Amino acid sequence: MPDLADLLRGAVAGERLALARLLTAIESDAPGARDVLPAVFQAGRGAHLVGITGPPGSGKSTLVNALISEWRGRERRVGVLAVDPSSPYTGGSIMGDRIRMMEHAADRDVFVRSMASRGELGGLAATTWIAAAAIDAAGYDPILVETVGAGQSEVEIASLAETTVVVEVPEMGDEVQAIKAGLLEIADVIVVNKGDLPGADGAARRLRAMLSTAGGRVKRQPPKVLLTNAVTAEGVVELVDAVEAARGSAGSEDRATRRAERQVRNVLATLATRRAQASPRWAETIADVAARRLDPVTAANQLDDQP
Amino acid sequence: MPDLADLLRGAVAGERLALARLLTAIESDAPGARDVLPAVFQAGRGAHLVGITGPPGSGKSTLVNALISEWRGRERRVGVLAVDPSSPYTGGSIMGDRIRMMEHAADRDVFVRSMASRGELGGLAATTWIAAAAIDAAGYDPILVETVGAGQSEVEIASLAETTVVVEVPEMGDEVQAIKAGLLEIADVIVVNKGDLPGADGAARRLRAMLSTAGGRVKRQPPKVLLTNAVTAEGVVELVDAVEAARGSAGSEDRATRRAERQVRNVLATLATRRAQASPRWAETIADVAARRLDPVTAANQLDDQP
Repeated sequence: MPDLADLLRGAVAGERLALARLLTAIESDAPGARDVLPAVFQAGRGAHLVGITGPPGSGKSTLVNALISEWRGRERRVGVLAVDPSSPYTGGSIMGDRIRMMEHAADRDVFVRSMASRGELGGLAATTWIAAAAIDAAGYDPILVETVGAGQSEVEIASLAETTVVVEVPEMGDEVQAIKAGLLEIADVIVVNKGDLPGADGAARRLRAMLSTAGGRVKRQPPKVLLTNAVTAEGVVELVDAVEAARGSAGSEDRATRRAERQVRNVLATLATRRAQASPRWAETIADVAARRLDPVTAANQLDDQP
Repeated sequence: MPDLADLLRGAVAGERLALARLLTAIESDAPGARDVLPAVFQAGRGAHLVGITGPPGSGKSTLVNALISEWRGRERRVGVLAVDPSSPYTGGSIMGDRIRMMEHAADRDVFVRSMASRGELGGLAATTWIAAAAIDAAGYDPILVETVGAGQSEVEIASLAETTVVVEVPEMGDEVQAIKAGLLEIADVIVVNKGDLPGADGAARRLRAMLSTAGGRVKRQPPKVLLTNAVTAEGVVELVDAVEAARGSAGSEDRATRRAERQVRNVLATLATRRAQASPRWAETIADVAARRLDPVTAANQLDDQP
């Protein structure tokens, strides 16, 4: 294993293999990985980190492919991180997704990487965004983080993006939209994909109406709702424009602060859990809680107090 | 404020006001609340903790009402904890829900309580299940924890139940079901409510097919899928039977252990965050991460190392 600082230098100089190796080291929490993190962040060039999430079957990967083409047309070097699903229910489409993205495999200004690990460093979400920082250091911008599925960890990862795009399919009624309040709340741009399907206009209209009346505790502009057809690339120019515009919009500093807080809390939770799990009393304590001999708050405090 | 140990004794003796006050103390993390927790858990009688979750508009509260009637018919004293949504998008129905449950307001063997706090004690999920333990100590069994909405925190809360019921509406197609993989994975029983609507049978059939083929990483029996009509109480007897059966089913000890682990991790994360937020360096560190001068892993480690 070469020195990680050397790999970082190589990645910054444009060596794809060095970047790939650096990412492997970060993903697997290899010896020295933690020490190189500050340097990775210092080498960052401020790429736009874009989260793209939505249900399986929404055509998300085809859309990512179309986005790559559009950004390449704007002479941007594009990084893509595809986070594999933790859900067994969404496992089927991964290979197909990766194969679709190979359209850009020969383009040296496109860097695609799948994240497969559970995130040894500080949880999957933290590891994903650290990997994005490494790709940033290598000069790719924007960096698209595609999460497959819409489980809890996918929402969490997407919420750490600078700009978050939520992809919808047009068949969903109002009730179903409401289900996904968790997703809609983190969206900067909502895409109703497969805009040629019947009902797409209606779905977009209902979404806009719902978002404009929602208000309440969410103190920000409602997200923009766009129609796209990833296969014909219709609406993709407008989507890229909307993503670019979202970055500089009002409140983006506040958002950066909240995002940073979520990132740090995320790692703190992972660190606290790991420390507690390393305690010789962990298994016994969990068994006591499972048998309701001990409450979780007292249990956590006991594990937390350990030297 | 009376002594919390006195309130606990009163609650155990059947005094509803004492129980209500004890819950207020727990919810607000009143002085002495942490000290009384072990006694609350020791006073527990092993009630069946049942989480009920699903999207707004699925008729969840009407179903809870019908479940209360059925369990009362079986001479059980029923506790209900209704957790208010964190999502601004689902705020509309709360009052209606609470009003519907007032049908049982005059029944002293039914105890209904809304949780409104953000969970000062150890996060909302931990606080909810500690409140459930207090209701358990007062002799109610089962205890239904109804989460309104299906955002991240609602899924988290429901996943801490002993038995989790996920309520669906029949209009949803296969794709939409897959969206909610996060919910389906935690379900012991899935209810397609409003079973008189067209498409209910089809929805139940599709769900069963999907669940039986899902397999993969989920090492357990697929959840049972039932049709109900909460308004006419059709299917409610079968639902109560299924919930009772789920409790004693194979793997319930494993599930209790995993649940306990989630509960403890949950509180550990809350404790770690609070400690870090109390650090004088918190705001500055978050600002550094937001400006990408510092990576979140190093930031969390620095905050975590503080005395």
